[in-house]
Amino acid sequence: MTLPAALTELASFLGDRLSRSKSDLAIHGRSEAHFAETAPDAVAYPETTEEVSRLVQVCAANGVPVVGWGAGTSLEGHALAVRGGVVVDFGRMARLLSVDADDMLCTVEPGVTRRRLNEELRATGLFFPVDPGADASLGGMASTRASGTTAVRYGTMRDNVLGLTVVLADGRVIRTGSRARNSAAGYDLTALFVGAEGTLGLITELTLRLRGQPEAVTAGVCAFPDTASAVAAVIATIQSGVPMARIEYLDAASAAAFNAYAGADFPELPHLMVEFHGSEAGAAEDAARFGEIADEFGCLGFRWSAEAEARNRLWRMRHDAYHAIIATRPGARPLVTDICVPISRLAEAIEETAAEIAASPIAGPILGHVGDGNFHATLLIDPEAPGELEAARTLAARMNERALRLGGTVTGEHGIGMGKMRYMEGEHGAAWAVMAELKRALDPAGIMNPGKVVEAD
Amino acid sequence: MTLPAALTELASFLGDRLSRSKSDLAIHGRSEAHFAETAPDAVAYPETTEEVSRLVQVCAANGVPVVGWGAGTSLEGHALAVRGGVVVDFGRMARLLSVDADDMLCTVEPGVTRRRLNEELRATGLFFPVDPGADASLGGMASTRASGTTAVRYGTMRDNVLGLTVVLADGRVIRTGSRARNSAAGYDLTALFVGAEGTLGLITELTLRLRGQPEAVTAGVCAFPDTASAVAAVIATIQSGVPMARIEYLDAASAAAFNAYAGADFPELPHLMVEFHGSEAGAAEDAARFGEIADEFGCLGFRWSAEAEARNRLWRMRHDAYHAIIATRPGARPLVTDICVPISRLAEAIEETAAEIAASPIAGPILGHVGDGNFHATLLIDPEAPGELEAARTLAARMNERALRLGGTVTGEHGIGMGKMRYMEGEHGAAWAVMAELKRALDPAGIMNPGKVVEAD
Repeated sequence: MTLPAALTELASFLGDRLSRSKSDLAIHGRSEAHFAETAPDAVAYPETTEEVSRLVQVCAANGVPVVGWGAGTSLEGHALAVRGGVVVDFGRMARLLSVDADDMLCTVEPGVTRRRLNEELRATGLFFPVDPGADASLGGMASTRASGTTAVRYGTMRDNVLGLTVVLADGRVIRTGSRARNSAAGYDLTALFVGAEGTLGLITELTLRLRGQPEAVTAGVCAFPDTASAVAAVIATIQSGVPMARIEYLDAASAAAFNAYAGADFPELPHLMVEFHGSEAGAAEDAARFGEIADEFGCLGFRWSAEAEARNRLWRMRHDAYHAIIATRPGARPLVTDICVPISRLAEAIEETAAEIAASPIAGPILGHVGDGNFHATLLIDPEAPGELEAARTLAARMNERALRLGGTVTGEHGIGMGKMRYMEGEHGAAWAVMAELKRALDPAGIMNPGKVVEAD
Repeated sequence: MTLPAALTELASFLGDRLSRSKSDLAIHGRSEAHFAETAPDAVAYPETTEEVSRLVQVCAANGVPVVGWGAGTSLEGHALAVRGGVVVDFGRMARLLSVDADDMLCTVEPGVTRRRLNEELRATGLFFPVDPGADASLGGMASTRASGTTAVRYGTMRDNVLGLTVVLADGRVIRTGSRARNSAAGYDLTALFVGAEGTLGLITELTLRLRGQPEAVTAGVCAFPDTASAVAAVIATIQSGVPMARIEYLDAASAAAFNAYAGADFPELPHLMVEFHGSEAGAAEDAARFGEIADEFGCLGFRWSAEAEARNRLWRMRHDAYHAIIATRPGARPLVTDICVPISRLAEAIEETAAEIAASPIAGPILGHVGDGNFHATLLIDPEAPGELEAARTLAARMNERALRLGGTVTGEHGIGMGKMRYMEGEHGAAWAVMAELKRALDPAGIMNPGKVVEAD
């Protein structure tokens, strides 16, 4: 019943795929975010569901925490072993197991990243639509209920995972969902594990919905005189029924960052970047209709194109936003916020946030998936400068409180991890305790990613 | 700690809204399906969430079962109090609480039916898309994870409930979800209660996603030489990216039933009925593209129209299918099946089912939501004829086994209730026990709709 006993037993069947090397522990002790480094006791590289099951059984018998690790791109410290234990790196469980073109679905292991999946799908005419920006692993994306630029059309991971294989806290292996599109057969366990951040079990296989690659794609960008006009154009577009595949907001500071980083020539004003998927005529009609609506709200010349090159340049810029924004203040560390509000409250949420950032000592360009009401301020902190981290935390706290006041959520897509635990009771009230009751039912010893999402001790 | 004590206490605050009248008990002891009548001990008509909470507390203290009741249209005996207790009829909790046009959502009490909701929404330009055929209550639709003809485009209740107010088994009131479109804030409790059939708690408020009424609608129908051609046309249409709002299959026997019941003039062949939503040009283009695809698969002349009258006639016929089919055998009672399979296996699933029905002593026209792989055989039984119920049960059992063999589910939209409990282990394996663990965590005394979905005793 000790850590050394567990590690000895794990090594007996994992061999050198149980690593305690300094570099491995250090790599798996860091996150993309500002959290303190916390190395695990060991890193395991299982190759099969059976190995994961055996690993969890050994850890359960010895009271050792188990923390899943995908691509390490999460932003709230989800994969940090804050109470020690074994990090399970799914780097060797990264096989594309099957693609079923007629059923428009595929089955993958959790370590497959979304870019690799889409590369492998290219010849099939299908693609997996969820696009959080980072080249995250699909197991991680499911575990954090990831979203992104295309959610306004194709939904989030909640909508695109049909079924899972999960190893529970006692080593049992279950399969959730089916290969059928709809089911009314009992509790929706798939939805319970999607977004559970590895606290209820480890995902070892995913069956995903795929979509047909659109026949034609149009994309464009335009500036607006102010945030309220841009958001009003978004609401009007949604209500008109024009099916947007992407609709992204960037504020003036983000536009300036794109100019500096990617050689763009955006006016320093709020912008919308949009994309439409359809038939050739349909995607062109959608872009034109959006242009008419944007005009009504004072847009300064909507430019769009059906050419792949122009579109790729646009979205590369958007995907590089994180780096473009960080580059505006060399040496700064980012604190990325992630609130999502009802779209009717979006303009005021952005404007109040922007005003508070402007009145603070730090910079924080704002951008977001505005069709879903989800936006981020990337607060740029000099870790050496007195008071800056404190100021950023205050701004983030006020954003989160604002999200709740406006009927929204403290995280649209990044998840809770350790970073947002303190807001859970404010967002969920008595329902947070219910989450802890579910956690205790499935993981009574609390070994699955302890210290995240719920307080179950 | 007895039923009489509970009823006395309930009457003390519900007054004559706690009914023990013979007619009330009889009405709430029957279902749409073939299950034996089982009257509850009392029927309660609460008017507020607080009353439901108090009611559940009283029942919990006395070990009395609590069973929710919406419109009584469910098909698997969900709302029957098979272990006695109090049926909670939501007929007096049927208020439309708010409509937020900009956010395209509304909040309703569970007793609101889908038709009334859409009538009240008409002037707003919005509608609620989930359409199971019956004029079910929204609380019931959420509890059974209902689906229907429009799910292929707009999704099921899983996709259209944003948040819930739920009374738990100990009387606690929780709110799940938020008014924001996306959230990554902890376990997806909304998805856990949607489809739980009242076994984990009672839904007392729902926040629902609404959609814009389409600018134009086109609809049409066509016959195919055989089932395989019709299904192949569906798969090709999905893969072509033509966005169908509805795509319904009916077999030759269903077509004949429509002819007799509604004066249609369908050839006695398999048919597809389709609908498209979009701009005027878009909906017409979609219908035309579908027609081209249908032609490739041998369709016998696709007729479509953008006129409301022709369309309403078509869908009234489809909605009356249940009655049209029953009318083909006067005095017969129906046993309705509900399997959903991956669409690549749909043709073989329908053909094998049809062959077995043809070889049996009973009739069973087949129709379904073929874009999702979900179909029903309505098995027509003379309750007096020896062997017929037995034959129908055998056919249904073989359909369910077939669904599982083909990677599907024993229920696409009707739910488990008491009718499908015996298939849960076959469909979910070890995951069914996990459902029972969740049930025990949230309802340790087993008072919420006992005898449904899980075996938790």
